[in-house]
Amino acid sequence: MKVKISRKAHFNAAHRLYRKDWDHAKNERIFGKCNNPNFHGHNYELIVSVNGEIDAETGFVMDMKVLKDLIKEEVEDVLDHKNLNLEVPEFEELNPTAENIAVVIWDKLRPHIDSNNELEVVLYETPRNFVTYSG
Amino acid sequence: MKVKISRKAHFNAAHRLYRKDWDHAKNERIFGKCNNPNFHGHNYELIVSVNGEIDAETGFVMDMKVLKDLIKEEVEDVLDHKNLNLEVPEFEELNPTAENIAVVIWDKLRPHIDSNNELEVVLYETPRNFVTYSG
Amino acid sequence: MKVKISRKAHFNAAHRLYRKDWDHAKNERIFGKCNNPNFHGHNYELIVSVNGEIDAETGFVMDMKVLKDLIKEEVEDVLDHKNLNLEVPEFEELNPTAENIAVVIWDKLRPHIDSNNELEVVLYETPRNFVTYSG
Amino acid sequence: MKVKISRKAHFNAAHRLYRKDWDHAKNERIFGKCNNPNFHGHNYELIVSVNGEIDAETGFVMDMKVLKDLIKEEVEDVLDHKNLNLEVPEFEELNPTAENIAVVIWDKLRPHIDSNNELEVVLYETPRNFVTYSG
Amino acid sequence: MKVKISRKAHFNAAHRLYRKDWDHAKNERIFGKCNNPNFHGHNYELIVSVNGEIDAETGFVMDMKVLKDLIKEEVEDVLDHKNLNLEVPEFEELNPTAENIAVVIWDKLRPHIDSNNELEVVLYETPRNFVTYSG
Amino acid sequence: MKVKISRKAHFNAAHRLYRKDWDHAKNERIFGKCNNPNFHGHNYELIVSVNGEIDAETGFVMDMKVLKDLIKEEVEDVLDHKNLNLEVPEFEELNPTAENIAVVIWDKLRPHIDSNNELEVVLYETPRNFVTYSG
Repeated sequence: MKVKISRKAHFNAAHRLYRKDWDHAKNERIFGKCNNPNFHGHNYELIVSVNGEIDAETGFVMDMKVLKDLIKEEVEDVLDHKNLNLEVPEFEELNPTAENIAVVIWDKLRPHIDSNNELEVVLYETPRNFVTYSG
Repeated sequence: MKVKISRKAHFNAAHRLYRKDWDHAKNERIFGKCNNPNFHGHNYELIVSVNGEIDAETGFVMDMKVLKDLIKEEVEDVLDHKNLNLEVPEFEELNPTAENIAVVIWDKLRPHIDSNNELEVVLYETPRNFVTYSG
Repeated sequence: MKVKISRKAHFNAAHRLYRKDWDHAKNERIFGKCNNPNFHGHNYELIVSVNGEIDAETGFVMDMKVLKDLIKEEVEDVLDHKNLNLEVPEFEELNPTAENIAVVIWDKLRPHIDSNNELEVVLYETPRNFVTYSG
Repeated sequence: MKVKISRKAHFNAAHRLYRKDWDHAKNERIFGKCNNPNFHGHNYELIVSVNGEIDAETGFVMDMKVLKDLIKEEVEDVLDHKNLNLEVPEFEELNPTAENIAVVIWDKLRPHIDSNNELEVVLYETPRNFVTYSG
Repeated sequence: MKVKISRKAHFNAAHRLYRKDWDHAKNERIFGKCNNPNFHGHNYELIVSVNGEIDAETGFVMDMKVLKDLIKEEVEDVLDHKNLNLEVPEFEELNPTAENIAVVIWDKLRPHIDSNNELEVVLYETPRNFVTYSG
Repeated sequence: MKVKISRKAHFNAAHRLYRKDWDHAKNERIFGKCNNPNFHGHNYELIVSVNGEIDAETGFVMDMKVLKDLIKEEVEDVLDHKNLNLEVPEFEELNPTAENIAVVIWDKLRPHIDSNNELEVVLYETPRNFVTYSG
């Protein structure tokens, strides 16, 4: 019996959308207000889901507390209260759009999840904008 | 890398559930309070999702602002503060159930979404009732 | 020891904002889209609060179940799935703005609440617009 | 045209995570605070979804009111304000983890849902922990 | 300039509403399902607010992190995953209604809050039932 | 009859908590992670409330659309997607804590609200931290 378990977490961060190899005018046209050179920021809400068989002994797919601690170590400790562009190496050359942040988070978590299980990341950039990535 | 991006929107409207070709007794039996001939109404919350490849240049599957404007033009401007039965041509012969409204919204948006991408519509009729349509 | 207890409820209804004694142009200018003659509608979320002394025997200010049933009888049964303008006598001559609906609900509940206790009504017309009335 | 309809419900209950065949030390190690022998409890939020073809006559996949009543009879009346370990036969030998509760709820509902339709159960144990089961 | 700062927290617990000095029939009549001798439970959501002058140097009424830690030590560590009736001394003779729990929490926090500042506790027993106590 | 009307809005911004006249060590000790020199950010949710008499003619305390537009012009257009420390003159010498931001917003709105009416600002810095200012 396969069940998907989900855990919510959150972090907040500053970021800016732009490409170094585009001039200012093109960055403005494509990224608008999100290209502010002084940065803006968000409270990112995160839902991490692991899909797998229920362990018959414990009744768990995966211990929620283990998942919570994993998200803290791999995601919150690395991204919370940070400037994504300046302080997170993955975004040195990668635009920190919600899409790319979700992929980066998924890549950080994947090695720590049982390889028989599927992993999904939902990331809310605002209460009205969110993205979903499943690998 | 495929990511699903989602945007929330909302509109409110009056409607009534009934079929012209059924008599009042049958409409009452099937649709109950929703058959009130004087109409009732809802705040409809809408989540539109587009699933596709991340554009390597922008880091976007689709610009959220473009999606937001598209929902405004195709859905909110057409349905907000309207009587669905009397003022929206699609429901002249079609019962405006949540299911049918979701299909109508999907049909309105589909031509404007890149044909390589998948489209999903989630429509909340109340905070406790909602429907999902993916074509 | 005074505690305020609060109970959430909800109903949905159609309505229209306008004054019979104004011409169409003035109604349009003041009430805009809310003046649609074919009506529009909302899911109204309601929070009813009663402020009073804790009964030392029960530990209740007022039994939440009694409050829930009272809201059902006095408010939900009267307003749910209704056209406020056409079917609720209080709005025959009174414009059903959120402000006026809150006052009407408060007036309906007040006689049923212990006169030593204070009553407050919060009414959400949409998730972004709400009003508070305390008599 | 296949649409997924969803209905939210809720119940609250006491429970304890442990296995009779494990000693106290092992139960503590695996289940931590959730192994409190005096029980703890939750407000469980439930979303039940039915995926199927829209009935061309009614515009419904399934009448939401029928689904609501079914959830009340099969789930809420059986689990609400109960001690899951002591009062719900399904958990006499089964650990009432969120995963197992979701499976039990799905099993209770499945016989009452049209066999052409798919059934999904989402169960929130807390606002931050939830599970999804689709059979 | 007085500002009210508010911090949300949560805990979950089992409880039962009843009076030892009433017979079973009276407890059933007054407390209904909440009198289940095997207990039931809730996810309690808590909002603690402190009203006071902004410190001109820091711009804080009170450091939110200090408030967060205080709530953890005085409330969450004491009530989370507990059976309120059996394991929390304050409820040995006091019925653990939402009203009384709010008063107990307020009494625990009050000595740790600057005496110039006002303290308010809002306690959600369910998403639909909550209470407010300000001393 | 006095009613309080409330309107929700939102903006997102980057900020940093620190005082120019304190050394780095003191800023770290008092403001912790919020002192990140590269900034971090939030989705700020705002609730603006106006308390006053219902206008007998319109049934409004104040037209919600007027209030919505006022918040857009005076608050959202000025703060949204901005770096509060670097781009908002009010915070050149003032620490942009939630408390101070709420006061600044209140000061911006107050001149535009009828002097007979009371104004209240609630500002969520995160879903768990918020502040209230009423002048």
